[in-house]
Amino acid sequence: MFEAKMLQSSVLKKIIESLKDLFADANFDCSSSGITLQDMDSSHVALCYLKLRSDEEGFEDYRCDRNITLGVNLGLMSKILKCAGNDDVVTLRAEDEPNILTFIFDSKNSERVSKYDIKLMEIDSELLGIPDTDYSCVVKMPSHEFQRICSNLSQLGDSVTIDCHKEGVDFKVAGEQGSGAIKLKQTTSVDKEEDQVTVQLNEPVTQSFALKFLCAFTKATSLSDTVNLSLTQDTPVVVEYPIAQHGYLRFYLAPKIEEEN
Amino acid sequence: MFEAKMLQSSVLKKIIESLKDLFADANFDCSSSGITLQDMDSSHVALCYLKLRSDEEGFEDYRCDRNITLGVNLGLMSKILKCAGNDDVVTLRAEDEPNILTFIFDSKNSERVSKYDIKLMEIDSELLGIPDTDYSCVVKMPSHEFQRICSNLSQLGDSVTIDCHKEGVDFKVAGEQGSGAIKLKQTTSVDKEEDQVTVQLNEPVTQSFALKFLCAFTKATSLSDTVNLSLTQDTPVVVEYPIAQHGYLRFYLAPKIEEEN
Amino acid sequence: MFEAKMLQSSVLKKIIESLKDLFADANFDCSSSGITLQDMDSSHVALCYLKLRSDEEGFEDYRCDRNITLGVNLGLMSKILKCAGNDDVVTLRAEDEPNILTFIFDSKNSERVSKYDIKLMEIDSELLGIPDTDYSCVVKMPSHEFQRICSNLSQLGDSVTIDCHKEGVDFKVAGEQGSGAIKLKQTTSVDKEEDQVTVQLNEPVTQSFALKFLCAFTKATSLSDTVNLSLTQDTPVVVEYPIAQHGYLRFYLAPKIEEEN
Repeated sequence: MFEAKMLQSSVLKKIIESLKDLFADANFDCSSSGITLQDMDSSHVALCYLKLRSDEEGFEDYRCDRNITLGVNLGLMSKILKCAGNDDVVTLRAEDEPNILTFIFDSKNSERVSKYDIKLMEIDSELLGIPDTDYSCVVKMPSHEFQRICSNLSQLGDSVTIDCHKEGVDFKVAGEQGSGAIKLKQTTSVDKEEDQVTVQLNEPVTQSFALKFLCAFTKATSLSDTVNLSLTQDTPVVVEYPIAQHGYLRFYLAPKIEEEN
Repeated sequence: MFEAKMLQSSVLKKIIESLKDLFADANFDCSSSGITLQDMDSSHVALCYLKLRSDEEGFEDYRCDRNITLGVNLGLMSKILKCAGNDDVVTLRAEDEPNILTFIFDSKNSERVSKYDIKLMEIDSELLGIPDTDYSCVVKMPSHEFQRICSNLSQLGDSVTIDCHKEGVDFKVAGEQGSGAIKLKQTTSVDKEEDQVTVQLNEPVTQSFALKFLCAFTKATSLSDTVNLSLTQDTPVVVEYPIAQHGYLRFYLAPKIEEEN
Repeated sequence: MFEAKMLQSSVLKKIIESLKDLFADANFDCSSSGITLQDMDSSHVALCYLKLRSDEEGFEDYRCDRNITLGVNLGLMSKILKCAGNDDVVTLRAEDEPNILTFIFDSKNSERVSKYDIKLMEIDSELLGIPDTDYSCVVKMPSHEFQRICSNLSQLGDSVTIDCHKEGVDFKVAGEQGSGAIKLKQTTSVDKEEDQVTVQLNEPVTQSFALKFLCAFTKATSLSDTVNLSLTQDTPVVVEYPIAQHGYLRFYLAPKIEEEN
């Protein structure tokens, strides 16, 4: 028996909304320590890794008697979650050898109970070991600022060059009609912590990435006030959205190898 | 001479918006007792019946010297009504043997007066006698809740089974990808009357209906805080939206005869 | 060297949004007295004329060493300006013989600086002399009211007849499905000046204009609370949007010569 109860359906909604456009189907791997999901986009360029820890406060109840894998179409899961009110308590439930995943949505006053069953899928996937390396540079910035930058620069070109140095971080694009550069300075004194830009720098890094994927990752913006970009030369960037009281959602994207920048 | 003056254009706007997608053209039957409209959708499955009583407070003035029928394209009427500000006073006017219906919109300060004339149509229609039967079950619930249920369940299948029993009312759908069930309990103590769910039950009823039509009916949600569903086995459901200070808008939909549920 | 600094990017954004659909490319003519732009739509029916005076308060800094013409694709300029926050300070910069126009956006706290370069174009254009005539009639009215009237009437027909007389101004349309007329009275006592309708009348004027263009002009509505319509019989109407602390944006449209009205 697997049963996970979350006090608010909104977190799960946002996670699935962030993923469903890049990743059609996904395996939720459930164990006593929590739920993880690892998936690759269809072009095998981007990877996501979700971790929701069972011992965090986001789960009101969590029980997983044996390890199970729930293969789900994320588009369908998104539809089902849209049937939950934002304040509904959501419970996920499956048998030990499941072919169905059950969603139960309880309204606060418990005068409306909704129950949805969806059929599970067999999804082939090879889990990649993701080494927990030290990165040359970790940029922490407001998530909406990162979203804006990706969205703005994608109007002028396909790839962005991220340049981390000790004063801050620069984002640059060059296209046929023009070019753009956005420079963020490390903030020293900002009232709210989530508005800060900080750069932890061991070594400067300059790398280019496909804006199409970074823009897709920023669908996770509503999950977190801040985003962490971890960069090392010639290594995939990690775009991490912390999920309060649950864990995190990470995206990995390989750099572009380009001569012209 | 027919002349009807309503203090707010918004009620008439909402009525026409509720109807125009299912019913292309309609006859407004005007008499000294008020305005009625009965229409069938093009597939002859759903029926609507509108009643605006002349003696209710919603009309500031009402005059109808002899019975007339105004055949109107509802899409055009919707366009015209969008030209009225929400607070404009709206007057409908027609001659005794009319080929034109006139809309007059007066702004509150009367510094803007708009006048629109539209051509009337000959619309064939046979008025059906709708017997005023006693229903086995009448459910009263918040209109936005009914809208949400229809919208949610329509994602999973084409028809909903409504099951009225003494504890409350259940809405169920079964589709290829999964199934859903929403259970509403009768509310006992809710602060606001319009948030209550009540079930008057003479006899339990279980019937299936096409969600496409129920979803179309819920376009009338903004007309009323509550909706009444009246059900009897093997009889069309009545979906009634009371219109404050005017009357009501009712939709009728025949049940689906299905083996599989 | 040309450099113009505006305290808010929003005014420039709104100007370009107003123009970009009717006018694909445009020359910004910059001189020490300010920036002007004159352009004709592709069908040679409508003309726009923008004037931003260098000595108005809207420019924090303005410098133009020699007259230059900046040929710009307005769609691209719109994209670039969307990259500016509404409160960003925007600086336009070009060399004396430029092939690039630079946009610099500084956030208030100056912790984000964005710089965009776009390539300039050679745009053929013949400047028309626009005589500064006296008009028979000048109507001043709320810009949103003019927008609403154009939008409403365009649902019923292609051209509007504007009829200025000493009591006010009438807008009329006649189409296949019906006809409409909106009458505005001169307001005598309105609390807010921008809500007033005033008609300065030397001579009554009645003329018809293509609603398609008037509707396009009303994209400038957000630039100004009021709009001025200047009319003389058999002469293009001038639709002027004053731009506070900068100058104005004017549109010219030739009347329709029609028998049937």
